[in-house]
Amino acid sequence: MNAIDALKKSFIFSSLEEADLREVLKITREKRFNKDEIIMQEGEKGDCMYLVVEGEVGVSKSLTMKFGDNDFRQTEKTLTSFKPEDHAIFGEMALIGQDSRSASIAARTDCLFLEINRNDFVRLIEAKPRLGVTILLKLSELLVNRLKQSSQDIIRLTTALSIALSR
Amino acid sequence: MNAIDALKKSFIFSSLEEADLREVLKITREKRFNKDEIIMQEGEKGDCMYLVVEGEVGVSKSLTMKFGDNDFRQTEKTLTSFKPEDHAIFGEMALIGQDSRSASIAARTDCLFLEINRNDFVRLIEAKPRLGVTILLKLSELLVNRLKQSSQDIIRLTTALSIALSR
Repeated sequence: MNAIDALKKSFIFSSLEEADLREVLKITREKRFNKDEIIMQEGEKGDCMYLVVEGEVGVSKSLTMKFGDNDFRQTEKTLTSFKPEDHAIFGEMALIGQDSRSASIAARTDCLFLEINRNDFVRLIEAKPRLGVTILLKLSELLVNRLKQSSQDIIRLTTALSIALSR
Repeated sequence: MNAIDALKKSFIFSSLEEADLREVLKITREKRFNKDEIIMQEGEKGDCMYLVVEGEVGVSKSLTMKFGDNDFRQTEKTLTSFKPEDHAIFGEMALIGQDSRSASIAARTDCLFLEINRNDFVRLIEAKPRLGVTILLKLSELLVNRLKQSSQDIIRLTTALSIALSR
């Protein structure tokens, strides 16, 4: 898959015309990671978002779990994995000011990504505000979808906790 | 507080200049609710966001809780309340395509709001994309902050569940 196809198929750039996609392409950089390399680490600062072009990545998050009396352990929970056909982007919160990573991402195979840096992104949307509005509307939609998902998770966990506590 | 001050103090319009605030003001409508009136109902469709100018509102969400053997009840959990000095906005997800309300909002006192409708909002940011980029960046920042908060809630609930299950 070439870079412009990868952009076009990713959710936040999916409503852009060819000419606008080329503008976005100008601020992307190709970046390769080897199998098992850590692409981002939860909690670390970062100012780039990534788009998977080739390869597979795993997303994980650390959790405190209780294994026995006074035995609390920080465990790494794998949340999901992405293949190129998912057209996944990650680290997109870095584009709008959030600088600490909310999860860890590791390369499960050799990978090729497109990387977009926050400063370049802000410069682009300020120089081309019409393009900026189109991208930011999709980015907001993505964030709303994630919030909706989180909200459902919170309801499920609260219900499960209420059941566990009433035993 | 007048309408332009209320806009200026709310997070998503806080970085706008006076002239831009006046453009936003043109698409707002004043809306009054009486004490105990329901402003929005969780799950219902809606296409407006609101900004509290006068009065106090309560935010609640329904949850399934277990009260005894096979006794599951849908309960209404009050999450928080907002006063005018919080410069709270709610229903903002409706501006970017999310049409079912994620929580219920009720007036705790007589209230005055500014209401902004999705279609008017989209028309404004398309007609004035530079203004659009400024607002959408703040709106995205607000969504990212809420996602961060949800993510912390999920971690806390997962830890609590692990403790409850290990008893």
